[in-house]
Amino acid sequence: MKQAVVISVDAMGGDHGPSVVVPACAKAFADLDRVRFLLHGDEVQIRAEMALVKLPDAVVEVRHTDRIVAMDEKPAQALRRAKGTSMWNAVDAVRKGDADVAVSAGNTGALMAVSMLVLRMSPGLKRPALVTSIPNARGFATFLDVGANINCDAERLVEFAIMGEAFHRAAHAVAKPKIGLLNVGAATMEGREEVQRAHQLLNSGEIDLDYRGFVEGRDIVSGKVDVIVTDGFTGNIALKALEGTVRFFGVSLRSALTSGRMGRLGAMLARPSLRQFSDRLNRPPAAQLLGLNGPVVKSHGAANVRDFAISLCAAIDVASSEVISYAEHNVRRSQPAG
Amino acid sequence: MKQAVVISVDAMGGDHGPSVVVPACAKAFADLDRVRFLLHGDEVQIRAEMALVKLPDAVVEVRHTDRIVAMDEKPAQALRRAKGTSMWNAVDAVRKGDADVAVSAGNTGALMAVSMLVLRMSPGLKRPALVTSIPNARGFATFLDVGANINCDAERLVEFAIMGEAFHRAAHAVAKPKIGLLNVGAATMEGREEVQRAHQLLNSGEIDLDYRGFVEGRDIVSGKVDVIVTDGFTGNIALKALEGTVRFFGVSLRSALTSGRMGRLGAMLARPSLRQFSDRLNRPPAAQLLGLNGPVVKSHGAANVRDFAISLCAAIDVASSEVISYAEHNVRRSQPAG
Repeated sequence: MKQAVVISVDAMGGDHGPSVVVPACAKAFADLDRVRFLLHGDEVQIRAEMALVKLPDAVVEVRHTDRIVAMDEKPAQALRRAKGTSMWNAVDAVRKGDADVAVSAGNTGALMAVSMLVLRMSPGLKRPALVTSIPNARGFATFLDVGANINCDAERLVEFAIMGEAFHRAAHAVAKPKIGLLNVGAATMEGREEVQRAHQLLNSGEIDLDYRGFVEGRDIVSGKVDVIVTDGFTGNIALKALEGTVRFFGVSLRSALTSGRMGRLGAMLARPSLRQFSDRLNRPPAAQLLGLNGPVVKSHGAANVRDFAISLCAAIDVASSEVISYAEHNVRRSQPAG
Repeated sequence: MKQAVVISVDAMGGDHGPSVVVPACAKAFADLDRVRFLLHGDEVQIRAEMALVKLPDAVVEVRHTDRIVAMDEKPAQALRRAKGTSMWNAVDAVRKGDADVAVSAGNTGALMAVSMLVLRMSPGLKRPALVTSIPNARGFATFLDVGANINCDAERLVEFAIMGEAFHRAAHAVAKPKIGLLNVGAATMEGREEVQRAHQLLNSGEIDLDYRGFVEGRDIVSGKVDVIVTDGFTGNIALKALEGTVRFFGVSLRSALTSGRMGRLGAMLARPSLRQFSDRLNRPPAAQLLGLNGPVVKSHGAANVRDFAISLCAAIDVASSEVISYAEHNVRRSQPAG
């Protein structure tokens, strides 16, 4: 019999805490087979929310703490007093082997710092990256870093390529993903110094990846490459620009289709097609921290019940994926023997 | 009688040169009243293209040169030998007062360098910015820098706010545009050092702008602010990500709507609404260089006839706009008296 996956959840993370996290667990439990939850946070609040939803006691273990990491705390400051918070405990349960994967909608910088301290980096990697999947013209693209590292040197960008390739193979079952480095033009003489240096390193032949050179912003969704690598500042802004555009596009489309009688009739007839289309474009609101000795999923801070439930489902995939061993393998083959 | 606007065109710029530029002039001439063209480049090629389209000799003056700036030349290198090229001459005609505005689809970095040298910066400004308008939930947003300055310090970002505010007032007739600074979060403690410093300067009260603080990538189209300020690396990538998403969205929508019989019928009925919607979202493929003593419009390198014609129409608006004097006024009022 297949073992249940145990998800360790920071029940206090995100803008809404247990009032979103607990109903999301109930929703994910209804959709998934064989899942158990470790909920870290204020037991009274968590139990109160559990009383309102269908979530059997048998699949939940509440681990009480009254300490939390605030959403607006600076990572360095949060880290000094993070031990024993719901975020820390959620990640620590993975380290101790009590859970298979941790999920938090809390402060991104703090989650990264806590995860590094508790789980430690995989051998040969220096900094975690936040990775996400984006629907593109050929299926899905892997995009990183979407916000963990605001400043990145060339070596970090190369690490992201190594981790992103492993993620894409594990998550999207592509044998030899094509890698692109985000720049302002596909020509080789433009762009920032660290981006130029990363390009040289990836092109040197010493790193065994299918590196295809520079790509532009439009290639995040064009399907030209499978993995798009950039720093966390640019990646976060590009990702949110893309999400905002999809949302704006949806609203504009709806308003165009309801402004005239023919449009309304047409939209009604086309509704199933439109729904299928919008389901595909609405990206799962979850990202994974790569490079650690254990899987950590970040849901966005403003996540609602549906969003957080999707993050929990994503966590199940993450827990059973080979990304960590693929990444370790990538690191080994990209380092000189000796 | 209203004077004709004279557009000085780099006929050799872009991926296609005169074979796109000349038909685009004919198209713009058919749409516009009172426009004349100065075409700079290879006279034989230009005349050959003119023979194929409806473009009266009377509205065109060809100024021959056989020298061009290559699309892949480094700006510094291009600059050393730029004098007398079609790009240089196109900009120089504005300086000499022979034309009201210059348009080029050539190499962005070279166009910026040439424009700075030929036209000089407006008093009090250090570097030009490339600005564009993006449809958003409330009309249009002004977005800059979209590619002129790959590395920007805090002072440059503040200049962009000053120039962007002037542009928005001139182009979109908003009395007091709201300014936002692009960052990875709306919270104040995140983001890069230069972005933090620019935020402090804009918040200091010494610069008379309606500065609303940090905005996120999604706010480029959300309508939260009118003017979105960022560096040229991030801006270029975010803009292209947004354009790529709109294109991908359009293709996906079309394929969803043609995959089933009901969808097809619905799409047929809704066609006028859908067309109106897509016209609105297809951003004019032109951007303006701000901060110079004269207007310069940049069309994108891969522009086709329709795209370049739109850039020519945009150039007419630019030529008659108050953006330069508004920017000068902004600079004066944001500097200490004395």
